[in-house]
Amino acid sequence: MKGYFITFEGIEGAGKSTQSVMLHNHLLQNNKKVVLTREPGGTKTGKKIREILLSHTEEIFPPLAELFLYEADRSIHINNLIKPKLKEGFYVICDRFTDSTLAYQGYARGLDINKVKEMNSIATEGIKPDITFLIDIPVEEGLKRISKEREKDRIENEELHFHRKIREGFLKIAEEEKNRIVVLDGTEKPEVIFQKIVEILKNRNII
Amino acid sequence: MKGYFITFEGIEGAGKSTQSVMLHNHLLQNNKKVVLTREPGGTKTGKKIREILLSHTEEIFPPLAELFLYEADRSIHINNLIKPKLKEGFYVICDRFTDSTLAYQGYARGLDINKVKEMNSIATEGIKPDITFLIDIPVEEGLKRISKEREKDRIENEELHFHRKIREGFLKIAEEEKNRIVVLDGTEKPEVIFQKIVEILKNRNII
Repeated sequence: MKGYFITFEGIEGAGKSTQSVMLHNHLLQNNKKVVLTREPGGTKTGKKIREILLSHTEEIFPPLAELFLYEADRSIHINNLIKPKLKEGFYVICDRFTDSTLAYQGYARGLDINKVKEMNSIATEGIKPDITFLIDIPVEEGLKRISKEREKDRIENEELHFHRKIREGFLKIAEEEKNRIVVLDGTEKPEVIFQKIVEILKNRNII
Repeated sequence: MKGYFITFEGIEGAGKSTQSVMLHNHLLQNNKKVVLTREPGGTKTGKKIREILLSHTEEIFPPLAELFLYEADRSIHINNLIKPKLKEGFYVICDRFTDSTLAYQGYARGLDINKVKEMNSIATEGIKPDITFLIDIPVEEGLKRISKEREKDRIENEELHFHRKIREGFLKIAEEEKNRIVVLDGTEKPEVIFQKIVEILKNRNII
């Protein structure tokens, strides 16, 4: 692949989207070919899947069904956007990717970790991020931030306990993949975090 | 499980839905507790997934994404309808189930057969039909029937060649699972086919 694949991960309210947008703008200003996308919902079909995942429902929504829907979204995303753009030499910045599935459906919902890893690997067709920024923040702080902004969706609406498991899950994954995943302190000011991101990307010769 | 799980399978236009409805009415008239459902789309959330699967789109729709969406639909269906109704002693009649996924995504789309079987097994949580009726019909005949009725959806719209692979796939699956799957000649009159279905169900002490 000629391009670079950069993902942002973290719990709700950590600041992933803010940093994704800042990096996107920074690369645009430097005349780089760059595309900013997200999961779920990075494609037209994916947007419909996202809508199903985040809508409130009175039906039982099994963790397994969530997993299958995220992987369906991902398979469509990989084939329609991520793979073709990487081949064309673009920077592909993605707000959430496989680590979120592992943290949410694996560590928090309790699905078998190896099963989730296998599904991730099938859906991505072997494509892995060149670098992942995990923006880490205490759960209370993250939830406080999003509750100010808007009404919570089905997944944000889960108990504190659930979000703690997600944060712990992310930190475990980062521990296992130290080369790929860089953990950043999400309680710092966005500009400070962003400066670190740019430095790291420069040090790794990605930008 | 106290109830009985009866599925109908076959290519487009074979007459599955007609037979499902006839059996449903027959059991209702005999004061049985019975529910008629289908895949995809047996639940509210499932209907949204069905809509995604059958809509025409200019995006690439990878076979793997289809597989994940069918399994998501199935997991929700199993947990909200099939399992609870079987526990309550209902006859659950389902128009398409796991054999369709194996025939369409496996034999016709070319996904690894064992992978599809594994996904089916994960999504169904071990629930298997007590009996499956495969209504077999030549592909040309099936497609002729549906083209009279309505506009074709994304999957019906595939080439003749694709539908031939599905029919062959179904027949292979039936060969492998002779006990569970009964193959019926779909070119016979609906009333004749239905008489056979009733006889078989009586012989097996299901009704």
